[in-house]
Amino acid sequence: MGIPQGLHVEPNDVVLFIGKDRRTFIRSVVPGDRLQTHFGVIQFDELIGTRYGDKVNTHLGHSVYIIPPSIDDIVKHLKRETQIIFPKDLGYIVMKMSITPGAKVIEAGTGSGALTMLLALLAGDDGHIFSYERKAKMQALAMRNIRRLGLSERVSFIERDISEGFDQTDVHAVFLDLPTPWEYLDHARAALRGGGFFGALVPTTNQLTTLLEHLYHGAWYLLQAEEVILRSWKTIPPRVRPDDRMVGHTGFLVFARAVDREIRSSMEDASDEPLEYEE
Amino acid sequence: MGIPQGLHVEPNDVVLFIGKDRRTFIRSVVPGDRLQTHFGVIQFDELIGTRYGDKVNTHLGHSVYIIPPSIDDIVKHLKRETQIIFPKDLGYIVMKMSITPGAKVIEAGTGSGALTMLLALLAGDDGHIFSYERKAKMQALAMRNIRRLGLSERVSFIERDISEGFDQTDVHAVFLDLPTPWEYLDHARAALRGGGFFGALVPTTNQLTTLLEHLYHGAWYLLQAEEVILRSWKTIPPRVRPDDRMVGHTGFLVFARAVDREIRSSMEDASDEPLEYEE
Amino acid sequence: MGIPQGLHVEPNDVVLFIGKDRRTFIRSVVPGDRLQTHFGVIQFDELIGTRYGDKVNTHLGHSVYIIPPSIDDIVKHLKRETQIIFPKDLGYIVMKMSITPGAKVIEAGTGSGALTMLLALLAGDDGHIFSYERKAKMQALAMRNIRRLGLSERVSFIERDISEGFDQTDVHAVFLDLPTPWEYLDHARAALRGGGFFGALVPTTNQLTTLLEHLYHGAWYLLQAEEVILRSWKTIPPRVRPDDRMVGHTGFLVFARAVDREIRSSMEDASDEPLEYEE
Amino acid sequence: MGIPQGLHVEPNDVVLFIGKDRRTFIRSVVPGDRLQTHFGVIQFDELIGTRYGDKVNTHLGHSVYIIPPSIDDIVKHLKRETQIIFPKDLGYIVMKMSITPGAKVIEAGTGSGALTMLLALLAGDDGHIFSYERKAKMQALAMRNIRRLGLSERVSFIERDISEGFDQTDVHAVFLDLPTPWEYLDHARAALRGGGFFGALVPTTNQLTTLLEHLYHGAWYLLQAEEVILRSWKTIPPRVRPDDRMVGHTGFLVFARAVDREIRSSMEDASDEPLEYEE
Repeated sequence: MGIPQGLHVEPNDVVLFIGKDRRTFIRSVVPGDRLQTHFGVIQFDELIGTRYGDKVNTHLGHSVYIIPPSIDDIVKHLKRETQIIFPKDLGYIVMKMSITPGAKVIEAGTGSGALTMLLALLAGDDGHIFSYERKAKMQALAMRNIRRLGLSERVSFIERDISEGFDQTDVHAVFLDLPTPWEYLDHARAALRGGGFFGALVPTTNQLTTLLEHLYHGAWYLLQAEEVILRSWKTIPPRVRPDDRMVGHTGFLVFARAVDREIRSSMEDASDEPLEYEE
Repeated sequence: MGIPQGLHVEPNDVVLFIGKDRRTFIRSVVPGDRLQTHFGVIQFDELIGTRYGDKVNTHLGHSVYIIPPSIDDIVKHLKRETQIIFPKDLGYIVMKMSITPGAKVIEAGTGSGALTMLLALLAGDDGHIFSYERKAKMQALAMRNIRRLGLSERVSFIERDISEGFDQTDVHAVFLDLPTPWEYLDHARAALRGGGFFGALVPTTNQLTTLLEHLYHGAWYLLQAEEVILRSWKTIPPRVRPDDRMVGHTGFLVFARAVDREIRSSMEDASDEPLEYEE
Repeated sequence: MGIPQGLHVEPNDVVLFIGKDRRTFIRSVVPGDRLQTHFGVIQFDELIGTRYGDKVNTHLGHSVYIIPPSIDDIVKHLKRETQIIFPKDLGYIVMKMSITPGAKVIEAGTGSGALTMLLALLAGDDGHIFSYERKAKMQALAMRNIRRLGLSERVSFIERDISEGFDQTDVHAVFLDLPTPWEYLDHARAALRGGGFFGALVPTTNQLTTLLEHLYHGAWYLLQAEEVILRSWKTIPPRVRPDDRMVGHTGFLVFARAVDREIRSSMEDASDEPLEYEE
Repeated sequence: MGIPQGLHVEPNDVVLFIGKDRRTFIRSVVPGDRLQTHFGVIQFDELIGTRYGDKVNTHLGHSVYIIPPSIDDIVKHLKRETQIIFPKDLGYIVMKMSITPGAKVIEAGTGSGALTMLLALLAGDDGHIFSYERKAKMQALAMRNIRRLGLSERVSFIERDISEGFDQTDVHAVFLDLPTPWEYLDHARAALRGGGFFGALVPTTNQLTTLLEHLYHGAWYLLQAEEVILRSWKTIPPRVRPDDRMVGHTGFLVFARAVDREIRSSMEDASDEPLEYEE
């Protein structure tokens, strides 16, 4: 399940097709189905058993590479109705929240399911993702994206306004990708195990400021706010240089660790200085 | 194993201690052992069973938080003798190379084992990491770091100059973190399954250029060269701003996918245009 | 001359018009002429004497602001046939090369004249710009741009392949914006006064490396290579954030100071260490 | 005056001395005075008439280069008691505010005089700088810095809290480098000619947001908020790469143009849409 790890294409594998013009397609190799493109048709029944890394020919005789998609290939091809979290941010988020096999994670909102997918891939069969979203239509899209990857058993989709709280407790991480994450900090804290990871993505400094304020007055510690900036380079050896244009901004990533509030206060009360912001 | 996922401290858990002055320590809670700091001593036998997120007192009465370390906490505390790969790059590398449970991965050189650790955490019990390093002394350090996290069974350390080649075939990914990665591209290609992930980190544009040149003439496709730039922000709500100083550069990340060379050439031969670099 | 510094529009002033839809136009207010736009016509004879910062009405009754253009307004509106130097780089170049009133400066090639214009503005009536360009057609365009600003007397346009050398000596600064600046370093050195400023803009690291190599072996000192990255922010107060997209790269700026080569060598010979690159 | 433009060292020139270890010194070559360093002494009387770009010997026989300082050399050597504006920002500020010979400019506060110096250099003998500062001691330092460069006649230093307003009207540009620039916008507007340039530097997004809010409700147009990020590269040809560390943040630059408020309002009233922020 997930990204195909075998040597040959198997039924229902998710496969990346790369045409001669470098245009790419991602499809589940459903037996009986086929890929139809501007450079010809590939029948999936004939594709099964092909070695990854090889090329196949369309019925028009054009060569097409067959390789397993990477995580960011999949993210770039996700059907979406909202802004997705960019791969540059996804990789950093799961590293900071230390998502490894066995992880139990809450995310809200589901959106188009890019982070959902990555969490499910990394949490493995022993972990589980609880993905909350207010809008049924949006979640239906993410569910389809997750099902296509064969990850449905690792994800529980919950259609709900999270102002009603989360159903889980003692999860390892909570990630909020919604406009007012500060309104749900108590719910997030209640759902996390002690020491658990809180993360959020907010586009504006207004949101960043408000979120930091609320984190400061809650049962949180080790606050961090960061931006991940990705600079792509041209790969032409005689003309190596950064790309002319780049993504200037996606959002600010905020991380914190869940601790016990009373304990934190007592630590600070014991100090000679008044309660103040940590530099 | 790996990062503790339980609710309470168990024997041999790897734990992050945070003192009142925000100085942090990471220790394996080996029964009978103890943490000794400038703010007092904590006996590990008394620590076992403590809930994560709570505080404990040193023998001098100072409060210390007990939480599970994050991946980047561990990386920052790794004993090292060389420059490690920074967390900003680590998260992006494993996402781009799509390391998920079950992955078989080769890395060279081992260095201090930061990437080794992250690969082992993500590959899970069903995956495996083959870590090559020329210098025995260096590898001994990485082995200690990996053992402390209970990940030894997921990693094979191989002391060797990789100009002799790799022992494995059909691995999912090969990552090279050494000065002349272009010298080992044929070995990397021979070790990878079709469609497998190649990655490398090089600090200079001279190396970047040479590596790209060699990749262009080998059995590789979908070349990418990228930089990940991390900008940390101050988290004081009334004075939100980026930090004064930041890391300006660690290295260029290069990625490519393993394909069959003859096939690639035939695709290009079929075109009307002469063989040339892809923009 | 140059950017109008008076309070009211005078004949031949270069003026920035800003329509209601924030579309902008730059025109020389030539008596008898007029501005014709999609929101109506403004007769220049009626415009003369208007106070800067006020609005005027087109014949269709639409309001248009009248203000003096800034340097970067002018650069953005320059008629061009080549890539111009971006304002973010222009400001840094003239600061690094310390262009102040009275400066004598050589540039090559002229291009569309963006840097020519800024140099002429800053050098004032007592300075002078010598602008070399191989292509007559290109230079004609720059000459028109400079004439429109009333700066023609401050600039000598010279149509020449600079492999034949420069006519001037003892100039304060030489700036090269052409593909192979390293081929003309001896000419640049011969034209500069002692301690004079050398600057160049090159897009690729291949060029950067070659240029640095040649500078190291010539009569140059205090080499610097830098990139200026401009990040624009949205100015909507409730949603303050960087723009989604930004310019990822224009070029690398290289600066050096002209010194006497024999002297430099003798300094290094006197050292205990072999001649090597300065870190 | 300003940066020496002659070929030889003249009395009272401001000169950059570069020792063998690349340590640099800036001094006014006052007759009778001398430079005293760890590598020996240079008598200024003997220095006068030396060609720029040549070396001289200290009494200990060590070679020292003699070149005119660049603007950023001077800024880096300024005696300071506060954070100065960095050269990367200085170059962009004067380009955006279009400071050319003849410019009349107000700045507040004076600080250590880095911007004051650059403004005075660019405004030339026909321009003038009005520099306001609350703290007499601070201004005394800047005055010394300006006097050393022979620019005193181009600058009026005014010790005042600018909540009392500015004495000048119809200036070309006003730059505010102080903690609460929004409190002085009416004074700035009153001092500026129509279409004049407003600029400010603020370190935090809290200040940025407040300043933008006030600018939106005043007689200002064409608001811009930008960051200038400078990335320095190592200049060793075989190892070309960005520096390991860089300045992560200095401040946000905000620019706007002075217009007539009533006119602006009437333009917006005429629209079908309610008054709202411009995207």
